[in-house]
Amino acid sequence: MSDPGDLRAFLAEAWQHLRRGVADAKSPARYPVFATVSPDGTPEARTVALRRADPQAGVLEVHTDTRTPKVTALRATPVAALHVWLPRARLQIRVTAQVEILTGDAVSDSWNQIPPASRVSYGTEPLPGQPIDSVHAYDKPPNRDRFAVLRCHVSAIDLVHLYTVHRRAGYARADGWAGQWRAP
Amino acid sequence: MSDPGDLRAFLAEAWQHLRRGVADAKSPARYPVFATVSPDGTPEARTVALRRADPQAGVLEVHTDTRTPKVTALRATPVAALHVWLPRARLQIRVTAQVEILTGDAVSDSWNQIPPASRVSYGTEPLPGQPIDSVHAYDKPPNRDRFAVLRCHVSAIDLVHLYTVHRRAGYARADGWAGQWRAP
Repeated sequence: MSDPGDLRAFLAEAWQHLRRGVADAKSPARYPVFATVSPDGTPEARTVALRRADPQAGVLEVHTDTRTPKVTALRATPVAALHVWLPRARLQIRVTAQVEILTGDAVSDSWNQIPPASRVSYGTEPLPGQPIDSVHAYDKPPNRDRFAVLRCHVSAIDLVHLYTVHRRAGYARADGWAGQWRAP
Repeated sequence: MSDPGDLRAFLAEAWQHLRRGVADAKSPARYPVFATVSPDGTPEARTVALRRADPQAGVLEVHTDTRTPKVTALRATPVAALHVWLPRARLQIRVTAQVEILTGDAVSDSWNQIPPASRVSYGTEPLPGQPIDSVHAYDKPPNRDRFAVLRCHVSAIDLVHLYTVHRRAGYARADGWAGQWRAP
């Protein structure tokens, strides 16, 4: 751990964990919980896989099928909360982000980098979440037209470090990520 | 694993995990992510500790400080999404619940059962999330008046089991938890 009173270093640690999540499928930062608000105003939360983390741009990306309820939710309220808990570091990362839904030509490069065996995550029939008659009554054909990148433009980050004495800080894009200690 | 085509058994497994979360602080079900909608319509998500899981009543409980943003959120929109991921079982449990905020005499029994050393989680000064001048510029006096039980009356459960062939099912209080297979 760097100087525990260094706000910038605290934020840099969090981004390091997020970048490791992209690079290493075994990192706990690989699978954030992604919370949205459904069109009827209900909170929703599900696991996603982190595909990009860019500290300079303040951007995180996840991939999804366009026909999932989370995309329906984001079309109504284009904001997400991402949550990561890092057990060894005892660090909770909470991100608030404005989400842009990219499809079609804008995501060709991302699609081309997905191994064919993984493309079956985009195109489930019937649609994800729909009732089916028996446990395995569905197909998973890859469908490029249903592939979307959720580009999450981070607006705020809240970090809580459960240490001998807890540390908590908040950061906002609006003030250039200067950061502010918070009561935990 | 029980018969993979048995809807009732699938739900029973999920409740078993939730009950273990209450009993065993090392279980991954101990620490759900708790998502709410803030008064301005933004999704929020944070870790909570599971304190009660009652399959018969369809109730989950967590404890909180009444002055946290999640209570503010719940006063405006009394609905929460709880998310648990069980790595070994490869099971995602998603719960939607109507949340009742209990305080005062109604929570005396719960308060009395909390070890004194843990009561410091209720009463942080300044209020949790408030700006502070330096990293450790806060106190954690126990404050019974700020202790609340969030009684989560489960209305729906969605389970996803990542197995050789994935399984997903949805359950609702409205139909007596009969359950329905879903496309994953």
